[in-house]
Amino acid sequence: MNYIDKFIKMALEEDLGVVGDLTTDSIFSDEHVSEGKFSYREESVVGGICFAKRVFEILDNTIQFEIIKKDGDFVNKNEVVALIKGKTKTILKGERLALNLLQRISGIATNTKKYVDKVSGYNVKVVDTRKTTPLFRYFEKYGVKIGGGYNHRFALYDAVMIKDNHIAAAGSIKNAISMVKKNIPHTTKIEVEADTYEQAIIAMESGADIILLDNIRGDYLKKCVEILKNKVIIEASGNINLENIREIAESGVDIISVGAIIYNAKNIDIGLDF
Amino acid sequence: MNYIDKFIKMALEEDLGVVGDLTTDSIFSDEHVSEGKFSYREESVVGGICFAKRVFEILDNTIQFEIIKKDGDFVNKNEVVALIKGKTKTILKGERLALNLLQRISGIATNTKKYVDKVSGYNVKVVDTRKTTPLFRYFEKYGVKIGGGYNHRFALYDAVMIKDNHIAAAGSIKNAISMVKKNIPHTTKIEVEADTYEQAIIAMESGADIILLDNIRGDYLKKCVEILKNKVIIEASGNINLENIREIAESGVDIISVGAIIYNAKNIDIGLDF
Amino acid sequence: MNYIDKFIKMALEEDLGVVGDLTTDSIFSDEHVSEGKFSYREESVVGGICFAKRVFEILDNTIQFEIIKKDGDFVNKNEVVALIKGKTKTILKGERLALNLLQRISGIATNTKKYVDKVSGYNVKVVDTRKTTPLFRYFEKYGVKIGGGYNHRFALYDAVMIKDNHIAAAGSIKNAISMVKKNIPHTTKIEVEADTYEQAIIAMESGADIILLDNIRGDYLKKCVEILKNKVIIEASGNINLENIREIAESGVDIISVGAIIYNAKNIDIGLDF
Amino acid sequence: MNYIDKFIKMALEEDLGVVGDLTTDSIFSDEHVSEGKFSYREESVVGGICFAKRVFEILDNTIQFEIIKKDGDFVNKNEVVALIKGKTKTILKGERLALNLLQRISGIATNTKKYVDKVSGYNVKVVDTRKTTPLFRYFEKYGVKIGGGYNHRFALYDAVMIKDNHIAAAGSIKNAISMVKKNIPHTTKIEVEADTYEQAIIAMESGADIILLDNIRGDYLKKCVEILKNKVIIEASGNINLENIREIAESGVDIISVGAIIYNAKNIDIGLDF
Amino acid sequence: MNYIDKFIKMALEEDLGVVGDLTTDSIFSDEHVSEGKFSYREESVVGGICFAKRVFEILDNTIQFEIIKKDGDFVNKNEVVALIKGKTKTILKGERLALNLLQRISGIATNTKKYVDKVSGYNVKVVDTRKTTPLFRYFEKYGVKIGGGYNHRFALYDAVMIKDNHIAAAGSIKNAISMVKKNIPHTTKIEVEADTYEQAIIAMESGADIILLDNIRGDYLKKCVEILKNKVIIEASGNINLENIREIAESGVDIISVGAIIYNAKNIDIGLDF
Amino acid sequence: MNYIDKFIKMALEEDLGVVGDLTTDSIFSDEHVSEGKFSYREESVVGGICFAKRVFEILDNTIQFEIIKKDGDFVNKNEVVALIKGKTKTILKGERLALNLLQRISGIATNTKKYVDKVSGYNVKVVDTRKTTPLFRYFEKYGVKIGGGYNHRFALYDAVMIKDNHIAAAGSIKNAISMVKKNIPHTTKIEVEADTYEQAIIAMESGADIILLDNIRGDYLKKCVEILKNKVIIEASGNINLENIREIAESGVDIISVGAIIYNAKNIDIGLDF
Repeated sequence: MNYIDKFIKMALEEDLGVVGDLTTDSIFSDEHVSEGKFSYREESVVGGICFAKRVFEILDNTIQFEIIKKDGDFVNKNEVVALIKGKTKTILKGERLALNLLQRISGIATNTKKYVDKVSGYNVKVVDTRKTTPLFRYFEKYGVKIGGGYNHRFALYDAVMIKDNHIAAAGSIKNAISMVKKNIPHTTKIEVEADTYEQAIIAMESGADIILLDNIRGDYLKKCVEILKNKVIIEASGNINLENIREIAESGVDIISVGAIIYNAKNIDIGLDF
Repeated sequence: MNYIDKFIKMALEEDLGVVGDLTTDSIFSDEHVSEGKFSYREESVVGGICFAKRVFEILDNTIQFEIIKKDGDFVNKNEVVALIKGKTKTILKGERLALNLLQRISGIATNTKKYVDKVSGYNVKVVDTRKTTPLFRYFEKYGVKIGGGYNHRFALYDAVMIKDNHIAAAGSIKNAISMVKKNIPHTTKIEVEADTYEQAIIAMESGADIILLDNIRGDYLKKCVEILKNKVIIEASGNINLENIREIAESGVDIISVGAIIYNAKNIDIGLDF
Repeated sequence: MNYIDKFIKMALEEDLGVVGDLTTDSIFSDEHVSEGKFSYREESVVGGICFAKRVFEILDNTIQFEIIKKDGDFVNKNEVVALIKGKTKTILKGERLALNLLQRISGIATNTKKYVDKVSGYNVKVVDTRKTTPLFRYFEKYGVKIGGGYNHRFALYDAVMIKDNHIAAAGSIKNAISMVKKNIPHTTKIEVEADTYEQAIIAMESGADIILLDNIRGDYLKKCVEILKNKVIIEASGNINLENIREIAESGVDIISVGAIIYNAKNIDIGLDF
Repeated sequence: MNYIDKFIKMALEEDLGVVGDLTTDSIFSDEHVSEGKFSYREESVVGGICFAKRVFEILDNTIQFEIIKKDGDFVNKNEVVALIKGKTKTILKGERLALNLLQRISGIATNTKKYVDKVSGYNVKVVDTRKTTPLFRYFEKYGVKIGGGYNHRFALYDAVMIKDNHIAAAGSIKNAISMVKKNIPHTTKIEVEADTYEQAIIAMESGADIILLDNIRGDYLKKCVEILKNKVIIEASGNINLENIREIAESGVDIISVGAIIYNAKNIDIGLDF
Repeated sequence: MNYIDKFIKMALEEDLGVVGDLTTDSIFSDEHVSEGKFSYREESVVGGICFAKRVFEILDNTIQFEIIKKDGDFVNKNEVVALIKGKTKTILKGERLALNLLQRISGIATNTKKYVDKVSGYNVKVVDTRKTTPLFRYFEKYGVKIGGGYNHRFALYDAVMIKDNHIAAAGSIKNAISMVKKNIPHTTKIEVEADTYEQAIIAMESGADIILLDNIRGDYLKKCVEILKNKVIIEASGNINLENIREIAESGVDIISVGAIIYNAKNIDIGLDF
Repeated sequence: MNYIDKFIKMALEEDLGVVGDLTTDSIFSDEHVSEGKFSYREESVVGGICFAKRVFEILDNTIQFEIIKKDGDFVNKNEVVALIKGKTKTILKGERLALNLLQRISGIATNTKKYVDKVSGYNVKVVDTRKTTPLFRYFEKYGVKIGGGYNHRFALYDAVMIKDNHIAAAGSIKNAISMVKKNIPHTTKIEVEADTYEQAIIAMESGADIILLDNIRGDYLKKCVEILKNKVIIEASGNINLENIREIAESGVDIISVGAIIYNAKNIDIGLDF
């Protein structure tokens, strides 16, 4: 819980600063207690309720926070997902951060589910990308998993992704892979971005673990999949949306990566009612 | 630049971790240099180009980054906003963070501009709220200003906002204001959320600097504005969107606060082309 | 309690470093317990006892610390304000920091009370300034409140203060206020420093919320107050001391700011007796 | 410069927060430059000018800061100690912190000098104690040295100080010293607090390097000094002030420690004039 | 350079604390300059000279540090690897940290080379493990690469390693792999520790990318390798030393992991001569 | 416990990063509990078991960790030193760090004991040096004490060590000591490195507290000891090993410093068995 706690402490500091909540600290005594309900104003997959709870625990370990709907559950409009009870000061100081976490993570989970539902029946994983809000990536990628999706590499340090620039500098796909293998652990996978059938084959033959077929569609995509299938992991990417994702899944790719499941997710409207 | 630099360093750490960019570090020497152009794939207000520049400067003080379109400028599809030149390693390591900053801040600026344009001709300010992405608030609120909007209070520590819970605990609006005034600096404004005409009047008479008329519309809103105008700052809030914002502006309020200008802004598609 | 805890942890680190308390760690076992009393060696307003308690709790959550006189209480010479019981190691390691906090905050509270008492009967607030010890501002401003005073703005970020330099650069008071209003939230107050009657009037008419009358005295001060009263908040400042503060209060100003209530407060002599 | 830079960065953050200087950022462009003079409003030993310079360098490495009177120099009323030239934004953002450092460190230096002057002619060092402002100890102890004094141990980790509690727990002074020697480096000195002649002798015979004669005066002090002189370092402490310090120096002690040279120093009035 | 710089700053703080280098600061002025040579007192692979340079640059950006032998070069006794020139203060403050980095990283590089040389002629990689000094892992693993070895996974977050406990809890190797695949990115490899031929086959068939043959030797090892070769990556581990490593390489495994190349490396004796 | 906790948190972050333990988090539920035993695979002095315990407490305050053999105890092969019981997730996440601490600190303690045993019967202390692993010095020096040794100064800030360079710059040993005394607290000891009998005498007469006889052996060493004994602390250093340490102890020196007790200690093989 190290990283999550550190993040929450910094985010509380963002809202409370040095002098704290001027309004609440002026009006409520430490003895004043309240009860509240977190309820969703619209249909959603619940995402981030565990972090919302943690916000209040970090502020005050006497708070009672009961989770009614856990992350991944589906809720209808006006459903209550958690009850909170304790010092009013604590509840009001953590309220906005808790809601800001919930509204965004639930939004991503709900958005992801739409994409995942579109490809139901196919043996394909919908994954995210590194197009995330700076410093908030962990939480956004968590939302993707809660919504039924999977994560792509977390960062530049946990997998290799060879793109145009790398290939150009190395001289060839083969060289690029060879240079990478001299430097990285044997525990790290190598993904190569291919724009053509020919590149895809060279990448596979040069030892790539994953081939990213970038913006390839239709029969050409199927042709690529045919040659690569079960030899490497096949990932499709590039301008994928709710309209075209099912067609891409039909091609037989293993993975479809969609940046928009995170960055264009609509926030869910959630409130804390006393 | 203290806070911004700190944020950028942490965000670079999010993407580079301890071991760095496995792909780039395997392929490029320190001597390899490249040039690139940041170009917008769609119409947008430019937002965050100053931070994008700072990303690369923090990574490597030999990088050359020329800003062509500055924050606040409007760009068409395919317009180039900046040129970068320097070590390829630096460019590739900072690329994703720079783009993630640009795409989100430009998205907010562009979204804000839509709201601001809707109320053109009225003497009213469109402002944001505290419904922001945790830790990213500074940058999101910056986007609002770039788009022609204004900021609401930054956090719980720089202005007072008295809501239902506070009033209930204090016994009355008057008591709440009085309790707050005993605790806060004389340099801090007091805003009171009012649901009715009567509350608004009491708040004004009790010394509120700003009255937030929450979810009040139509003639009732005009009646409230009439009594408050030029005596306090009048803010309208609650479910405001592109459809209803002009009607609200017509009522004569001073401020319209819209959470959605930040949280439901669509990211702008931006690329770095070599 | 975030900021306070962070401060206390850093201050403990200042005194304990990496290797800790060489003397105490050599002599006392973890089982050795002691009891002690915090007692004041001179008359004082108690200030900071809550932070003294927190010092020991942060070091060791098994410590018992009973507050007898709380912050704001007045104590005579030799009065005991708190009892402590627990591991001797903990008590000795936290002793100096706890006393350093108490002696300074109580000193400020006691000093503030002298100024506040001088203006009793007048409807005026005595406030502090930003002339504080670097990093210790929160605690010093807390001492002012405990002593019956009020705080001025906390920092450069929570209120506007337009001074000579700003006016010169902007061209006029009016321009300066106008430029500021384009940039700041509507929730932020604007204070303008005025050296003359004329400046004060312009500032008021240009929309300042607070006028700082700098080093103005006697009839001229009264004349300024007369025109400004109940239209803006009137603050007097500049070389105010125990001798002249009552005279200034008589003028009818709302606020008197006195840097010396913090920076020239005499520490209170406090001891921990076993 | 590591610690000093870290401190200054945190202190700038205290004053600038996340959003910065609302006033200055609204009015001045990055191109606006100014010149200013730091001048003393009263006689003083200069203390902290090196840190004042560093404040501006950390904010902006293009600033020009010329030191005219260096730390330790004596200045008369209205003397200029430094010139500054550069971006107005930078100057105004760092001004308060620079002055807050100068006013306090100069105050301590000036205060220390008074004590040191009182004992002129005697071979004795005036030293400080650990009664300092939390987190500001380094700077306060620096002021003591600038004023002609010396420092006592910096913290609990760099020297041993055996007091009543330690002796009681150990059973005897001899035991206490013996326990300490088993734990500490041979590079660490041991100081023992003695209330009586007998204790002082036991401490010396048990291997103490320094004997602290606590609140001992007159002939009894002389008697103690006689037996200890040139065998251990003799330190006098306890309620020492400008009135009694010379008499104590006459006794022949090596060191006189005075907490008040730091904690009751009066700030010096210093201004930055444009 | 983010992580490395952060580490070096903390390590400088370990040695310099708040008050700095008492000896050097007492004796040398800022104007005093010196020149020195880093020379090896014994044969070694050079490791860490880039970090040694960085130590001095971080302390003082005017220092001149010329690298003569770069990381990976082999040096004989008394060979000079770098020249340094600049402020004596800087050189003495950074000396110990620079040498502590060099002596350990060179020791690991030199030790690794011995293992690598032993298996020359075989297509096998010698890799390290996570048995490293806390917080120093990055530098130790760097030493392995400099010495001709390769790295295993960096940490718990960048690859999966399924061991006994995991298999027991999951019910079977197959279940364990299946559970992992539901949770991890498709970009992450899965390694399974196998104690027997049968386990190895099940792991391979269940989709493991790497099979760790733990403490398997001789014909049994060859039998395992035969069935796994070219289908998965085969790693041998467990009590491997300079005596038995060649025999293991002969078996045809792809990877041999040896914790001792890091944790039992002997430091190299290196000095800085003025 | 401030520093230790901070170190452990950073070291956990080194191994867990942002995304945590991919394997363990995929397989174990929060309800899964396990028991384990920490057992030594070879003879050793136990060192660091208190830190191992703290690792798990920091991860999860519900863990049960029973220490059977405490730091400083001697254990035989296969002896169990601690039992652990609690969430499997916690145990597996902390396992490697706990073992990495134990294996190194026990190795140093065991190595130190060999040197200490060699000089049994002599009134001499075996001490370490500053040749330590960056950031890990506290723990390594702790291992020395557990093994029966003593610590030299911790860092550059807690004692003075005058070497060749300092003497050359100061002009003479006498000047160097005099310069240092003007700057340092009276609570700080001064050590001078002497290469000859003559230097040693000058250092003693100039007021050094400790004389370091560098690489002096045999009759010449005895001659030096004779003149210095009981007047200053005599420390021998330079290429000391298990073969020559007893001979040096015979000379009558007070202190023998040996860098190799830390930097060439062999790690102890320790396991956690479920």
